[in-house]
Amino acid sequence: MLTSSDDQLWVVIMAGGSGTRFWPLSRRHRPKQVLPLVGGTSLLRATLERVLPLAGAERTWVVTAAAMAEEVRGQVPEIPADNLLVEPEGRDTAACVGWAAWRLAERAPEAVMALLPADHLVEDGEALRQGLRLAARAARQERGLVTLGVRPRRPESGFGYLQLGEEVTLAGGGAVRRVVRFVEKPSVAVAEAMLAEGGYLWNAGIFVWTVDAIVDAIRTHLPELAGRLDEMTQAARHRGEVSALAAFYPRLPKVSIDYGVMERAASVWAVPVEFAWSDVGSWEGLAEAVGGADGVRLGDVLGINSDGAVLVSDGPFVAALGVPGVVVVATGDAVLVIPRAASQRVKEIVEELRHRGRHELL
Amino acid sequence: MLTSSDDQLWVVIMAGGSGTRFWPLSRRHRPKQVLPLVGGTSLLRATLERVLPLAGAERTWVVTAAAMAEEVRGQVPEIPADNLLVEPEGRDTAACVGWAAWRLAERAPEAVMALLPADHLVEDGEALRQGLRLAARAARQERGLVTLGVRPRRPESGFGYLQLGEEVTLAGGGAVRRVVRFVEKPSVAVAEAMLAEGGYLWNAGIFVWTVDAIVDAIRTHLPELAGRLDEMTQAARHRGEVSALAAFYPRLPKVSIDYGVMERAASVWAVPVEFAWSDVGSWEGLAEAVGGADGVRLGDVLGINSDGAVLVSDGPFVAALGVPGVVVVATGDAVLVIPRAASQRVKEIVEELRHRGRHELL
Repeated sequence: MLTSSDDQLWVVIMAGGSGTRFWPLSRRHRPKQVLPLVGGTSLLRATLERVLPLAGAERTWVVTAAAMAEEVRGQVPEIPADNLLVEPEGRDTAACVGWAAWRLAERAPEAVMALLPADHLVEDGEALRQGLRLAARAARQERGLVTLGVRPRRPESGFGYLQLGEEVTLAGGGAVRRVVRFVEKPSVAVAEAMLAEGGYLWNAGIFVWTVDAIVDAIRTHLPELAGRLDEMTQAARHRGEVSALAAFYPRLPKVSIDYGVMERAASVWAVPVEFAWSDVGSWEGLAEAVGGADGVRLGDVLGINSDGAVLVSDGPFVAALGVPGVVVVATGDAVLVIPRAASQRVKEIVEELRHRGRHELL
Repeated sequence: MLTSSDDQLWVVIMAGGSGTRFWPLSRRHRPKQVLPLVGGTSLLRATLERVLPLAGAERTWVVTAAAMAEEVRGQVPEIPADNLLVEPEGRDTAACVGWAAWRLAERAPEAVMALLPADHLVEDGEALRQGLRLAARAARQERGLVTLGVRPRRPESGFGYLQLGEEVTLAGGGAVRRVVRFVEKPSVAVAEAMLAEGGYLWNAGIFVWTVDAIVDAIRTHLPELAGRLDEMTQAARHRGEVSALAAFYPRLPKVSIDYGVMERAASVWAVPVEFAWSDVGSWEGLAEAVGGADGVRLGDVLGINSDGAVLVSDGPFVAALGVPGVVVVATGDAVLVIPRAASQRVKEIVEELRHRGRHELL
């Protein structure tokens, strides 16, 4: 049993996401999670501060990619240097989770590992910690994979959903629900039907499991990844982690933990939580999460007759007049103008810049 | 009679307009007329090149204001230093015309003076020069005030109109029409009625008169201005022009030449011309004058699904997606986003910046 001091709970924050969707503010070396998007602080910093009361700096790891490691390191000064895991390159989330799990198996084989994305918005830190504590107990009791499920507030088509099955009461109090199906980003109509039917939660991508359980699950469902992680761990013992990473990490199979493991695993459980949550997946997502009727105003900006506009600058002064619902983002070297509803399409611009060889803007 | 060599025709280019309407590209020290808005060249430079074949550099004067004199001087290197007339401050067009006329009366009392705004777009230079030559003959013959009138191409509500009366044939060939009424910027309905009725031209603000005629007209209709110009001229003889200007110019009454003189004068004549003309009064005006279906693209910009958008940058890269008909103008320190149809309202932004004391952005 996990003690009340959570002394076997370790937290792994995934901070390796790339910077496409918040271009031009986000860049290769300065991705979304390090940007001061909400209340003057970064999503990464806010994530860390929410979990420090739970695991402390010594038991908190941050995984990131080499391109953005410097920015990330600067934002998490309290965690030990050895707790920053730097991927030579991003290999999707299963590789990231696998590396952390194999590494944790060496250091604390009895640990419960909580995995959190660095770039999500959670408004109630205490509710999150309560959810994680309950999930940790469930992970011990059921030896399964546990995910936090957020009560849906609207028929959002941009999120994934969990369909709930049987309820199991935990020994220490509280209950979890079996996850019987994952529903990837549905149409609005399907989302509305799920909300009407009930028994669905948003998949927040916040996972809790014992080290044993996730290692076993990866061995079962992603044997190739498991084999290479074994080799990498072996190599690290002999010639050090940096060298082993350089040799093995870029060859790890690229697959998401959701698709590669969660959707295939037999024992998956959900802890229903109530806090306001958003994956802040686009400028529109940011506006929905934190914008009022005015929209969003960050930096030296002026909006006239522009209700709902997202006006952001970390460089030039921005003046918008008569453009409600438009996103304007300005930096010293690039400006984006796009309707909120189309803000996912910023990827097309980034793609075009890559195509044109404008690497200085990526 | 003016000879065929135009050797008594002097040209005065008014280049003192302030930089509000093309903000943020235009500024106090860098107004619209010096910006490379069309074909990589400035409207001032294009204006000068159109009239040089007519009057030569020696008989071409450029009037500007102190705040923008340096920029203007850099764009007209071929005219003699003494031909750049620098107003200590702008006092509207009647003062500008009066100063030039009083000064020309000292140097070439027999001159015919052609007055052109520096910030208009004229596509056919030879047609303009033909119009000016005919206007010069008319100015001699009728001793009146002559204006070039552009055949209207659409019921434009942003321009002034001239209502035409009797036709008078000139001794050397050609004819002019008496102007019986000025119509200030009309409603679209009124403009449509005028086009249907016929007998109206756009007032291009390009005027031709003998020095005698304009001095007389100012004495008659703006006696206070005339009196102060007499004093200023007297002072210039005794203590030099710079000192006289500093003392007298800021006290000249502020009134436009159109309202103060043209609309009140008895003998006003129009030379109908056919060339494409625009006063380029706003970003929308620029787009109408030179933009295709795509809109306007100037500088390092990318438009996707943004037909008719005006995308301009002299600084950061600008990417616009899904915003047809929107104006985006970016400089190193400021960005404007406004619908084309509202682009006259950029004044509100400039006013707000002044109100907030953001003088570095003006």
